[in-house]
Amino acid sequence: MNQFEGIHPEIINKLRTSGNFTDEEIIEALSYFEKRTVRRKEFFLRAGDICRTKGYINKGCFKRYTIDDHGKEIIINFAFEEWMIGDLESFNTHQPTIYFVQALEDSEVLCISEENHLTLCEVMPKYHAFHKRKAESSHYATLKRLTSFQSKTPEEKYLSLIQKYPQLFQRVPLHYIASYLGIEPESLSRLRKRLCKKEKKS
Amino acid sequence: MNQFEGIHPEIINKLRTSGNFTDEEIIEALSYFEKRTVRRKEFFLRAGDICRTKGYINKGCFKRYTIDDHGKEIIINFAFEEWMIGDLESFNTHQPTIYFVQALEDSEVLCISEENHLTLCEVMPKYHAFHKRKAESSHYATLKRLTSFQSKTPEEKYLSLIQKYPQLFQRVPLHYIASYLGIEPESLSRLRKRLCKKEKKS
Repeated sequence: MNQFEGIHPEIINKLRTSGNFTDEEIIEALSYFEKRTVRRKEFFLRAGDICRTKGYINKGCFKRYTIDDHGKEIIINFAFEEWMIGDLESFNTHQPTIYFVQALEDSEVLCISEENHLTLCEVMPKYHAFHKRKAESSHYATLKRLTSFQSKTPEEKYLSLIQKYPQLFQRVPLHYIASYLGIEPESLSRLRKRLCKKEKKS
Repeated sequence: MNQFEGIHPEIINKLRTSGNFTDEEIIEALSYFEKRTVRRKEFFLRAGDICRTKGYINKGCFKRYTIDDHGKEIIINFAFEEWMIGDLESFNTHQPTIYFVQALEDSEVLCISEENHLTLCEVMPKYHAFHKRKAESSHYATLKRLTSFQSKTPEEKYLSLIQKYPQLFQRVPLHYIASYLGIEPESLSRLRKRLCKKEKKS
């Protein structure tokens, strides 16, 4: 019998490889989490709330967005299986978050409360280090995305997105992807048509 | 006599307030740093290098940039007195950095080597916590900047920049600010003229 039944293999894999956890340590760490179902369109976090719970996606996918001064939804990122969701700033500082985290599919999240997180960091330094590295990687990725936002054309951004997350286009509606790329949905449609023609010609 | 002579008051202030350091602890922490002069246009870090030293700016100002696929300089951020410079990703992972950090004025940096940093984190948990919070704040700021990049018009970005860093325009050439805002220098000039006319009218 698989002792990790019901847990996404990529979560186990990351704990083993990046976290250097033994199977016993994985079982111990997971005992601090609880599985929560989040239905499509349901919110994991809402702007104005204080983020008291972080989660690792066990199944499904989420978008994180904010509402700008003109009332427009600005998509910051999508998150899939094994990714961490919540808002680290609000979680760490206890200030209300400015982000919404909403399920795009019926999803399942392994949740850890602030209290359990702090305890687990204390009793299991490996978890602390693992979490720290995850937060840092997220920082580096954000910085690189900012760089690419400043330097890349919409077409370049789109192509690198396809290459990096081919599954994105199967799971996320196009107008959300347009928002993520910082362009209008009509521009994304035109861009896709243009690229499609190019491909047929070549 | 001022026991912190030669150290920018804002650095001492931040260590006292955010770091909760006593004066004795500040003296101890500073003994792990060495002051380095970086002349205008000199590099603190170059793309391709591994960042082995982090620094707090004691005097002067720097730009961090990268070169995009088209050979264009993309400015990620400017940094002034009391700000941390270097590349945390490269410092932590020992991978070559993709960033250049270059002085825009004759500058002075309080530098700490990786070895000293690790020792100081160990012997002084307050410094570890202080550094962790600084890195986290930098993460949150990057995320917010990405958000504003996606949602704000160039005019809005420019106005919020003036409000946040009024000193920027005295110290940094306009074409660098244009790059930071992700627009062409000509567009920034036009934008400034337009806003100036508006101001005169009102």
